[in-house]
Amino acid sequence: MKLDEIPEFLHGGDYNPDQWLDRPDILEDDIRLMKQAGVNCVSVGIFAWSALEPQEGVFRFEWLDRLMDSMYENGIHVILATPSAARPPWMAKKYPEVMRTDANRVRQLYGGRENHCESSKIWREKVRIIDEELSRRYARHPALVMWHLSNEFYGHCYCETCAANFRKWLRHRYGTIENLNRKYWSAFWSHGYSDFDEIEPPAPNGERQLHALTLDYDRFWNDLLNDFVEMEKAAVLKYGPDVPVTTNMHNMNCGVDYYKQAKHLDRISWDSYPRWHCQADKSTEWENAVGAGFTFDYARSLKHAPFYLMESAPSVPSQFEFCKLKRPGMHMLSSLQAIAHGADSVQYFQWRKSRGAVEKFHGAVVSHDGSGDTRVFRDVSEVGQKLKELSWLKGRPEISEAAVIYDYENLQALLQQVGLRRDKSFFEKLPRAHYEALLKNFVNVDVIGAEDDLSRYKLVAAPALYLFRPDTAQRIRSFVEQGGTFVMTCYSGLADENDLAFAGTLSRPEFAPHGLNDVFGLRVKEIDGLCDDEYREIEYRGKLYKALVCCELTEPAAGAGSETSGTAGAAPARCLAVYRQDFYSGTCAAAEHDFGKGRAYYMACHAEADFLRDFYSDALDAAGVKRLTESRGVGDVILRERDGVLFAMNFSTQPRTVRIGGRDVTLPGYGYEIVG
Amino acid sequence: MKLDEIPEFLHGGDYNPDQWLDRPDILEDDIRLMKQAGVNCVSVGIFAWSALEPQEGVFRFEWLDRLMDSMYENGIHVILATPSAARPPWMAKKYPEVMRTDANRVRQLYGGRENHCESSKIWREKVRIIDEELSRRYARHPALVMWHLSNEFYGHCYCETCAANFRKWLRHRYGTIENLNRKYWSAFWSHGYSDFDEIEPPAPNGERQLHALTLDYDRFWNDLLNDFVEMEKAAVLKYGPDVPVTTNMHNMNCGVDYYKQAKHLDRISWDSYPRWHCQADKSTEWENAVGAGFTFDYARSLKHAPFYLMESAPSVPSQFEFCKLKRPGMHMLSSLQAIAHGADSVQYFQWRKSRGAVEKFHGAVVSHDGSGDTRVFRDVSEVGQKLKELSWLKGRPEISEAAVIYDYENLQALLQQVGLRRDKSFFEKLPRAHYEALLKNFVNVDVIGAEDDLSRYKLVAAPALYLFRPDTAQRIRSFVEQGGTFVMTCYSGLADENDLAFAGTLSRPEFAPHGLNDVFGLRVKEIDGLCDDEYREIEYRGKLYKALVCCELTEPAAGAGSETSGTAGAAPARCLAVYRQDFYSGTCAAAEHDFGKGRAYYMACHAEADFLRDFYSDALDAAGVKRLTESRGVGDVILRERDGVLFAMNFSTQPRTVRIGGRDVTLPGYGYEIVG
Amino acid sequence: MKLDEIPEFLHGGDYNPDQWLDRPDILEDDIRLMKQAGVNCVSVGIFAWSALEPQEGVFRFEWLDRLMDSMYENGIHVILATPSAARPPWMAKKYPEVMRTDANRVRQLYGGRENHCESSKIWREKVRIIDEELSRRYARHPALVMWHLSNEFYGHCYCETCAANFRKWLRHRYGTIENLNRKYWSAFWSHGYSDFDEIEPPAPNGERQLHALTLDYDRFWNDLLNDFVEMEKAAVLKYGPDVPVTTNMHNMNCGVDYYKQAKHLDRISWDSYPRWHCQADKSTEWENAVGAGFTFDYARSLKHAPFYLMESAPSVPSQFEFCKLKRPGMHMLSSLQAIAHGADSVQYFQWRKSRGAVEKFHGAVVSHDGSGDTRVFRDVSEVGQKLKELSWLKGRPEISEAAVIYDYENLQALLQQVGLRRDKSFFEKLPRAHYEALLKNFVNVDVIGAEDDLSRYKLVAAPALYLFRPDTAQRIRSFVEQGGTFVMTCYSGLADENDLAFAGTLSRPEFAPHGLNDVFGLRVKEIDGLCDDEYREIEYRGKLYKALVCCELTEPAAGAGSETSGTAGAAPARCLAVYRQDFYSGTCAAAEHDFGKGRAYYMACHAEADFLRDFYSDALDAAGVKRLTESRGVGDVILRERDGVLFAMNFSTQPRTVRIGGRDVTLPGYGYEIVG
Repeated sequence: MKLDEIPEFLHGGDYNPDQWLDRPDILEDDIRLMKQAGVNCVSVGIFAWSALEPQEGVFRFEWLDRLMDSMYENGIHVILATPSAARPPWMAKKYPEVMRTDANRVRQLYGGRENHCESSKIWREKVRIIDEELSRRYARHPALVMWHLSNEFYGHCYCETCAANFRKWLRHRYGTIENLNRKYWSAFWSHGYSDFDEIEPPAPNGERQLHALTLDYDRFWNDLLNDFVEMEKAAVLKYGPDVPVTTNMHNMNCGVDYYKQAKHLDRISWDSYPRWHCQADKSTEWENAVGAGFTFDYARSLKHAPFYLMESAPSVPSQFEFCKLKRPGMHMLSSLQAIAHGADSVQYFQWRKSRGAVEKFHGAVVSHDGSGDTRVFRDVSEVGQKLKELSWLKGRPEISEAAVIYDYENLQALLQQVGLRRDKSFFEKLPRAHYEALLKNFVNVDVIGAEDDLSRYKLVAAPALYLFRPDTAQRIRSFVEQGGTFVMTCYSGLADENDLAFAGTLSRPEFAPHGLNDVFGLRVKEIDGLCDDEYREIEYRGKLYKALVCCELTEPAAGAGSETSGTAGAAPARCLAVYRQDFYSGTCAAAEHDFGKGRAYYMACHAEADFLRDFYSDALDAAGVKRLTESRGVGDVILRERDGVLFAMNFSTQPRTVRIGGRDVTLPGYGYEIVG
Repeated sequence: MKLDEIPEFLHGGDYNPDQWLDRPDILEDDIRLMKQAGVNCVSVGIFAWSALEPQEGVFRFEWLDRLMDSMYENGIHVILATPSAARPPWMAKKYPEVMRTDANRVRQLYGGRENHCESSKIWREKVRIIDEELSRRYARHPALVMWHLSNEFYGHCYCETCAANFRKWLRHRYGTIENLNRKYWSAFWSHGYSDFDEIEPPAPNGERQLHALTLDYDRFWNDLLNDFVEMEKAAVLKYGPDVPVTTNMHNMNCGVDYYKQAKHLDRISWDSYPRWHCQADKSTEWENAVGAGFTFDYARSLKHAPFYLMESAPSVPSQFEFCKLKRPGMHMLSSLQAIAHGADSVQYFQWRKSRGAVEKFHGAVVSHDGSGDTRVFRDVSEVGQKLKELSWLKGRPEISEAAVIYDYENLQALLQQVGLRRDKSFFEKLPRAHYEALLKNFVNVDVIGAEDDLSRYKLVAAPALYLFRPDTAQRIRSFVEQGGTFVMTCYSGLADENDLAFAGTLSRPEFAPHGLNDVFGLRVKEIDGLCDDEYREIEYRGKLYKALVCCELTEPAAGAGSETSGTAGAAPARCLAVYRQDFYSGTCAAAEHDFGKGRAYYMACHAEADFLRDFYSDALDAAGVKRLTESRGVGDVILRERDGVLFAMNFSTQPRTVRIGGRDVTLPGYGYEIVG
Repeated sequence: MKLDEIPEFLHGGDYNPDQWLDRPDILEDDIRLMKQAGVNCVSVGIFAWSALEPQEGVFRFEWLDRLMDSMYENGIHVILATPSAARPPWMAKKYPEVMRTDANRVRQLYGGRENHCESSKIWREKVRIIDEELSRRYARHPALVMWHLSNEFYGHCYCETCAANFRKWLRHRYGTIENLNRKYWSAFWSHGYSDFDEIEPPAPNGERQLHALTLDYDRFWNDLLNDFVEMEKAAVLKYGPDVPVTTNMHNMNCGVDYYKQAKHLDRISWDSYPRWHCQADKSTEWENAVGAGFTFDYARSLKHAPFYLMESAPSVPSQFEFCKLKRPGMHMLSSLQAIAHGADSVQYFQWRKSRGAVEKFHGAVVSHDGSGDTRVFRDVSEVGQKLKELSWLKGRPEISEAAVIYDYENLQALLQQVGLRRDKSFFEKLPRAHYEALLKNFVNVDVIGAEDDLSRYKLVAAPALYLFRPDTAQRIRSFVEQGGTFVMTCYSGLADENDLAFAGTLSRPEFAPHGLNDVFGLRVKEIDGLCDDEYREIEYRGKLYKALVCCELTEPAAGAGSETSGTAGAAPARCLAVYRQDFYSGTCAAAEHDFGKGRAYYMACHAEADFLRDFYSDALDAAGVKRLTESRGVGDVILRERDGVLFAMNFSTQPRTVRIGGRDVTLPGYGYEIVG
């Protein structure tokens, strides 16, 4: 059956029968239990290379043949994985160059997974061969609905072959070494290269001062990875070109630029592991829910289409500091959250707990007891039942009028900065803080790249958009000019795509945000960093809030806009919030500025969550973004609309009441309601 | 004189005259001061290799000849060490392969101690030669009372030679690679081996997912070490076979499985360094005393015989964060504690402070002043005097009716777990927590391995006995069946000796504790981990306590026992304590179950110290274990009985009163009383 | 113009036109802005090697020719740097041996700066060639006022060539291996060498037990570095021998023994980066000011002459955890503080912010805006103006009657100790704590080495002078005998220059402080370490204070002095402060003792800041040290006298009043007053 023709949400998960080949009784149990749990789809073969090719060139497909047939006979769809996530030991023994070399230039010994050298020719060849074998055998198998390339890619390799490929990539990008030197500002500390051959990838005990080099190595590696992805894609499609291809994304800052990778995939899949119930890092359920929602909206926005929840934990994920059971109700709630945010599946890692090795205690549908007589199994079965009820929603779209920019390269640039703030976790969390403020205002939100089409949205938030590509300023300018509302914050518009600070002269001074002083009606004069436990009071609409982390000192840029646009930008920004402490007390902490047909907001500081919530409430209303409820200020509740259906979800243990369609709906603790 | 014929406790310590060979005046002072301090035994030669063989093949025994004679003439016994704890620089220079290779596969440069490659042939040969030379010269010297092999062994080496030996060991253990793959569950992440030659020892940048591999490498290395120990033993006994052989153990989790090593030694020796008076880690004197007692009882239980306190600090040990003087009274008290727990000696590291290098400030009997006119010297002299008074107790046994299981392999398995709890220090401390609860109930306690003979005891506690060997369940079953009381806790009976989780099927479900559901009358359904600052209230006999770390959810296994045993086990467990919080409120937190002639207790959670104390008070009484006093609830006091003699020791600075033999005995701060 | 003939303080900073060679407009802006800011001196060429020799043997001096001429024409002096702080990539590519090898024996890849192998012949040759080229071209250029060697040296290299040189150095120092073994106490742990060839430099995975080895490797490397410095010096002076030579020092514990290095330099320069306004490590402005003052006084005391503030941040230094703007007033205050402590310049890193790489956000005079229309630029211009007003003070001396000993080798010895205290940051901070107490008493202070001439001072404080060179005891004895006041603390006089503890015998016991029992009238019997949160009350002049970190137990040494000196030392020390807690309650915590014409104080414990302040108040008065005000107990204010001119500086945000010359002077927040 074709993936899109399946009339139900996918429900199932990673299934590793290759671990139980000597236990036919277990494999029989599996079928019975899958049916009982409402499972209609399994992901197979993800780490099966040593079962498929136990010795070099010796292939064993019989077990997989049987499995595919058996699944088909039992009405269970198969997402078939290429086994390139982990190679068998014989390969590392014979071809050590397939193993990844770490940044310290030490090659890994055999072990782990997804730690290959993507430049290795023998590695690519071995992957191609087995992928093509899988294609030959199963591309037209009726159980197959999707190809799953490898598993949870992450980066990077730093071997000599990668270094050589990197130099080639640089020659192509920069042409001359003089050009590269200029773009890298390598005159700094006398790091000017005389030849491309002198360039080494960044290293903890080598070059780590040239930020452009680090950014470029990341770009190079992503290009290399995508080339690898295309190779695998070609291999699996060789004998059946019309099966969609995906891979499971998992971590927005794992070295893979998903925004780029998405272009090489047919479908987006996401692995989601919130730390439900875990107080160790002081996160509450709400923060977990926001975090999960953020990644779901990111996954969906990558193709502006439904995505697959490829992995989730039916109970305890094993990778955390503390391993807590999912409380009653949470499995249903967290599964429906994925659907609400645009998923077309609820799948688990994994179906049955392995008996040995590092993930043997990772929560699975079937635990070591093997009985199905467990709370987890019953929870999963209920989700299976509920998904059936909601089948008609599968494949339906989700529309947002507001978006937050999360830009991978921008984050990489911020993470290596020296001179703004040493603890970079702030930059990782910042887009989520703005996203959270929008969620609290009960609107649908997209999470997009800086190069995405802004015209889809009424309001776009760009927190700390530090890195401006050549067209970034112009794209924002046009968006506002044509009527959009754009919110930008401190730390924005400071550097170009090579992390070269924008710099001016006596005759043409330069102030952040680069190229947009007239759009925002102000310019940034100084950046004051706050210590972790410091704050400065700011006042907004008569109320005091705390500014944190960073306070920029701005001055109004009166009339700046008039020269270029001849629009309302001729007046300087209107101050919305003012600092009430320190030597910059009384100056502007947040401002708005009408420009063209639209409006530009600048937050000169980062401020506490309450400020963000209240600020966006006003900005959303001004921009005319649709709210999903007339309720205001209800905590712990996420509302999402998918194709006219409203999901109301309560992530607190206590009841919460929201007004939906003119009536008060009370959601019990960990409860939900689906309306429409 | 033969060791066992010495009519006094040994008193003395490590003596390094090889550091003072150019100072005959110091060596003369030493004799005078030893007599003054009541020293009757010294350990010599522990790091003397560069003094004994300053160049390859050039031996210098003259100084040791003189020393042995001089000691004998002055009535001081000698424990003579093999010098294999540290090799001279010339050896590492000429034969770099004698140095250990760390897990990251980098071979150490010269330095340190006890960091050899136990696989190195040249290392073994050099050790054998000098050991035999020592044997030839001193095996029949009248001063010699014991051989002391090396010093404080610890593990492991990861060089290519060790890897090759490991592969041989694995071939022997598993026969076929298929068998190993099955036992290792190596299908996980495609780590299935096609040949033994592909196997590498575990590595931080290599294989660390296969828990069975890590466990086996530890086992292999212990076998290798014990083979080395046997080699040294044969060498020193070559010219005098009747001298007992020991080595000084020091750390229950240093890579050496002492339970195994004990079988290769004639006598057990222990180095004890409690952090007296040090509040840095919030430990109180009481905890230090419990910790010391635990190791003493472990050392004694290894052979169920008196052990030697081979090293202790007469004042400040130098290895801690803060270096605190022993308060007045503490040296006597801590020395007598060793005797009370079964030691036949009080020995120090070291006799005289060295002038240079890393241990020059480690507290010694004679400090840098050289005068003997110090508080420490007087304290030591008083202990010498006291030991003389107690001479009649030397060699006398100590009997315990209760025991705590501390199993080295079980701990190794727990320490590498992923999915139970990331911070593993809990598992290291857990057996001591149960031990402490028993001590607080004033009973003698043994600390035994899981393979020890249980029938010696009325009550055996097995906290977190995660790893079950093939006969473990059966041995526990028999013990209870025949009338024993067995206490088991959460995290028990989860995996086999290859760390393979026990797993069931639809027709034969499997629940922890493996193979013992009928014995305990319950089965474990889920394991909930608590964060560090979390707790759940439990109620026991009308009082509330805190459950910490882990709450298992169990269900009664009614009648399970009746099928197999036909005994009282046919009824399910009786709930003793119940959870009073969270979604499992009202379910069972601790249970008891009569089985055969005995009783099995299951603690489904870990609980605070007060619960453990109160729980064991009831369980000890029910099991009829003898208490050493009629007092209850007296804090800070340890009572121990050795061959009818009662030692009452107060580790508080304040007076404490206990009832002994029908009278109230008040122990002053840091005071003691010996009765009987 | 000759450096000493310049009639003004130098004002300016690091200038890197080589980063802007393709921007002549920027270079023109620079001249205009420099004039505007009152800049009269720039440091040029510090990292210019890749601009000067872009390929091996291809030199480009044209841009520097133009720059030197242009600066001269505009009346701006040039401090010209050798480019040896960083080599171009081509050099590391062709000669990898120029890169430093870390202690783990891994050679660094290209990157960073000041990370060369000082033993590398090719490195030295390349430096010599370019230095001589610079000398040939610019040694007689009228803009040149000083040579600046390299930049912020730090240590160490551990390559094979360095190891070979080290062995040569050891042979020369010790003559025979037997002598070295004795001095190293290498019999410990059998580390006795049989040949110099067996000696390896210390290593984290090798030898780290022999403290003498670590001390010697540091000494060896400093000798090597100074040899390198002499080579560079000879090279730059080749074509013009009368230009003074300096290098910029930056960190009192960076591997460079500045006390030794100073002898190889004509002038002392210091880079100062206090963490103004940063509360992250709980330091207050006061502590920052004390810290800055300490380094200034150290720099000045190295040659007992004015020094150059070679680098400081006009605003945000980028290397800290949080990047805070300098508050209004602070730039003037912190700049004048340098002048007050004896600087002849206020220079910045750097003139203009670079656009790329790791220091692009480091505060500079001209920021990325390029306009000069910034608060920072105005602040700098004001300092320029103020320095002009104070021109007459340039080159004038500063005299102190009190001094604190900060001895580099002593600190290295303390930092590697095991057995005193694991956290060594205490030892780094201790001299500053005593310095602070003296500052609070409003006296001028020098910061000197232990080998400095003590007779300049009335009072000398030696906190934790652990390491005694052969003449240390005698020099202290003479100082006191001839009328000096000497203050010594716990941890003093314990070991010789090889870190060999002083040790006695029965007939000649040895107690700390070595060789000075009669001078201090006491001897140290025991050292008790306190945990971080512990204290012991001590009583001094009826008031209670807290003793921290360490409490030594002493006993009076009555009459000890009489034998050797026949002076007032015949009586034991008078107890000034007594312990009021713990078992040593009632014994002496601080004592004074008249000896010869002078007085010796011994602080047996470390005590809180208030105690130090009050103790020194009495001791300074007794020693007749001149106070700069009659005020007492005014916080946050530093008073310094330079050649009769009094600088009063308030580092609080609140006003402070001090009495100066008979009148009350109120200093506003961050304010100052210059009197005389």
